[in-house]
Amino acid sequence: MNYKMIIHMLGQVSLFEAMFMILPLAVSVIYREPDGFAYLATMAACALFGLLSMRIKIKDRTIYVREGLVIVSLSWIILSIFGSLPFFISGDIPHFPDALFETASGFTTTGSSILTDVEALSKSNLFWRSFTHWIGGMGVLVFILAFLPMKAGGAGMRIMRAESPGPSVSKLVPKVKTTAMILYSIYLSLTVFQIILLLCAGTPLFDSLTLTFGSAGTGGFAIKNDSLAGYTGLQQSIVTAAMILFGINFNVYYLLLRKRASQAFRLTEVRVYLAVIAVSVLLITVNVIPMFPSFYEAFHHAAFQVASIITTTGFSTADFNAWPPLSQTILVILMFIGACAGSTGGGIKVSRIILLLKGVRKEILMTCHPRSVKKLKMDGHTVSHEVIRSINAFIIIYAVIFVVSLLIISLDSMDLVTNFTAVAATLNNIGPGLNAVGPCGNFSSFSDLSKFVLMFDMLAGRLELMPMLILFVPSTWKK
Amino acid sequence: MNYKMIIHMLGQVSLFEAMFMILPLAVSVIYREPDGFAYLATMAACALFGLLSMRIKIKDRTIYVREGLVIVSLSWIILSIFGSLPFFISGDIPHFPDALFETASGFTTTGSSILTDVEALSKSNLFWRSFTHWIGGMGVLVFILAFLPMKAGGAGMRIMRAESPGPSVSKLVPKVKTTAMILYSIYLSLTVFQIILLLCAGTPLFDSLTLTFGSAGTGGFAIKNDSLAGYTGLQQSIVTAAMILFGINFNVYYLLLRKRASQAFRLTEVRVYLAVIAVSVLLITVNVIPMFPSFYEAFHHAAFQVASIITTTGFSTADFNAWPPLSQTILVILMFIGACAGSTGGGIKVSRIILLLKGVRKEILMTCHPRSVKKLKMDGHTVSHEVIRSINAFIIIYAVIFVVSLLIISLDSMDLVTNFTAVAATLNNIGPGLNAVGPCGNFSSFSDLSKFVLMFDMLAGRLELMPMLILFVPSTWKK
Repeated sequence: MNYKMIIHMLGQVSLFEAMFMILPLAVSVIYREPDGFAYLATMAACALFGLLSMRIKIKDRTIYVREGLVIVSLSWIILSIFGSLPFFISGDIPHFPDALFETASGFTTTGSSILTDVEALSKSNLFWRSFTHWIGGMGVLVFILAFLPMKAGGAGMRIMRAESPGPSVSKLVPKVKTTAMILYSIYLSLTVFQIILLLCAGTPLFDSLTLTFGSAGTGGFAIKNDSLAGYTGLQQSIVTAAMILFGINFNVYYLLLRKRASQAFRLTEVRVYLAVIAVSVLLITVNVIPMFPSFYEAFHHAAFQVASIITTTGFSTADFNAWPPLSQTILVILMFIGACAGSTGGGIKVSRIILLLKGVRKEILMTCHPRSVKKLKMDGHTVSHEVIRSINAFIIIYAVIFVVSLLIISLDSMDLVTNFTAVAATLNNIGPGLNAVGPCGNFSSFSDLSKFVLMFDMLAGRLELMPMLILFVPSTWKK
Repeated sequence: MNYKMIIHMLGQVSLFEAMFMILPLAVSVIYREPDGFAYLATMAACALFGLLSMRIKIKDRTIYVREGLVIVSLSWIILSIFGSLPFFISGDIPHFPDALFETASGFTTTGSSILTDVEALSKSNLFWRSFTHWIGGMGVLVFILAFLPMKAGGAGMRIMRAESPGPSVSKLVPKVKTTAMILYSIYLSLTVFQIILLLCAGTPLFDSLTLTFGSAGTGGFAIKNDSLAGYTGLQQSIVTAAMILFGINFNVYYLLLRKRASQAFRLTEVRVYLAVIAVSVLLITVNVIPMFPSFYEAFHHAAFQVASIITTTGFSTADFNAWPPLSQTILVILMFIGACAGSTGGGIKVSRIILLLKGVRKEILMTCHPRSVKKLKMDGHTVSHEVIRSINAFIIIYAVIFVVSLLIISLDSMDLVTNFTAVAATLNNIGPGLNAVGPCGNFSSFSDLSKFVLMFDMLAGRLELMPMLILFVPSTWKK
């Protein structure tokens, strides 16, 4: 285990976090809030840790798979710990595990909150809370890869693979650094575009920024207690569209930029993703018509909720906890499906689901015709045996984490639906669940133990399980 | 597709069903119930169908995998249809889909009921209802294999593999016929043993017989509205022990008969099965202590309920729907784990769970040490790649059936927990779920559509998915 290299990378992460905090600091100056000192203090702590760790002399810069995974998981843990300090120091979230929960929920783009009154936070804390979504959406290590010279051969790809969502990460261009830069440029452009649209729709600047951070990272923290229910239909529709767009595989935007539109729209994952959205919106609309004054209203809220849940954002415009069982069941299923691989969304990912279903089809056909030889194909390419095996392992590990988490949080005596959807909402990085953790509820009534379990689930979900699991394997820590 | 051979086998199945109905007919004579005519009429129908199908001349007796699977699934459907006629003709269950549901639930050893008042049934119907569990437990085709000369080379093993629970069916002895006979002898001996024990504990003969059928087949139909709550502690404890014993891989009993006890107790699956039971009983006992007058009472009911659920029997002595969330969560998890392969129990099966977890362990270690080569082993033998692949496929197909069933029955506007546990209880052949389908509830409020979906789930669960699925693949039906 190359400990020196790991500490070196963690130092870089904390330096970048200090840099990111310039924005909420600026907000505190603009709104003349005393919370600025909390940010200054945290930035100092980050910088101190960063600079100290930079002084370690590294002879061997090799990063193997193990180190890559550990760097990613520890980076996200460090990120959450430092990121929670402003909430804690400013006194807005006085209980430290709560502050940590809120921050981990932010960076992992989950959006589950322990706050009962969001609007009581200072502007700078509201800004930072939403901004963590934006940072976490594309990943801080991808950011570092994009903008910092890396001297580790091959390590970049390993780190990017560990931090990026999806079963197989492909480089857009031969160089990892360039790939990371392209991804961040697309991300930034879409973000700016959404901010402008929201401003044009009459949204205040502060709301436009925070709403966009929440949708771009598919996070879900809003700055109002009723999430997005208070915004106009137009503003809500812009967010609906934005969520769907941020849930699409970013390869599509790259292909569009390279003017290969036909290729982009042939991608199976994107087609299935859009089809699932269309069918779900249709079913839910029909199911909830009696609850709204018009067909359009029903459609509007169904579309918003479907987009919010499948992209694992977690914003809400209506209390879907009060919707009929069919709609709730569809939403719970969408929680698990999740967005496209290579997007900022969470969940199991559409491409994994497609490959699993193709595998089932193959298995059934092979039972009928045992001598036929079939290969799994996607978008014209044969899917390697390795990818299939890792997807199967992913699903099983996912189920194991789910069951163990469910058992531990059941100690809290909340009802089954609350527990089940709390785990589903955190492991899939969605935010709200049903019942006590529904869109009008929050996670504050869980015990600290449950909160730590759910934090683990958020991180495991965002980093696609393995980086977090490997921390618990003794042989990881051998020299 | 060898249609003639399929019809021939279905004819044999219906003849055997007519033969099995001699017992409820005898009960109707003893209790002087007019329902005897319903049985006579059904037996005549079975015999007519059986004798007609026997007249078909068969040149080619080859049964390929496809035919084997189709024979198994259609046999169970025929069995359920003919088996439901007495309930329907006698007027005890006047709505035909309900009668079919009750019978499919019986044969598949599920034990989910649509009856609101079980005690209103005639004695002969109560007897037949419980006896279907006993027939379904070991399987009617295994019965035919054991006692009828089969002229189809190799087909026996294929049919037995399709009908017997577990990821890999091993022949106890080289001849399939002898294996089937040994299995049925063990089954019959254990059944007789339990009947004698119950009689010694002061249980009336009729109750001893029906209770034993319910536990031997791990079915769960009781003859009282409060299931087993009204029996004495001793009687309940005998059933607890019996359920656990019938949930054990029957290989164990064969090894014991051959005086290879040490080998029997080294089997990983059996050890894990007993360990899971022990841990669950302990946790639930501690969790429910406040609900019972003494520690012993809590332990007694926890043990009964754990045994009932993990073996997928579904008897109850207490309303676990009112137990705290931790206990409920554990019971729901046990629903999915299920009993040992090669037992009469349902669920995913302990051995599949073990192999899945071993696969996860291997995957995590391989991530840490990519160059290491590991093979999955169980009881000292390397597990073949084929078995692993089929288990992975099983889990995915299982999940797909689960989700689709859940969606369809959600149309009925029952709550999420009811819907979720209704599918879990039928697909795993348990019986009761939670809320509306809890131990004090029943399945009567579902629509006919939902009932048919749940019947499909019962059959798919009992036959381990593939035989039922293959019916929907167009290429199955090609000549």
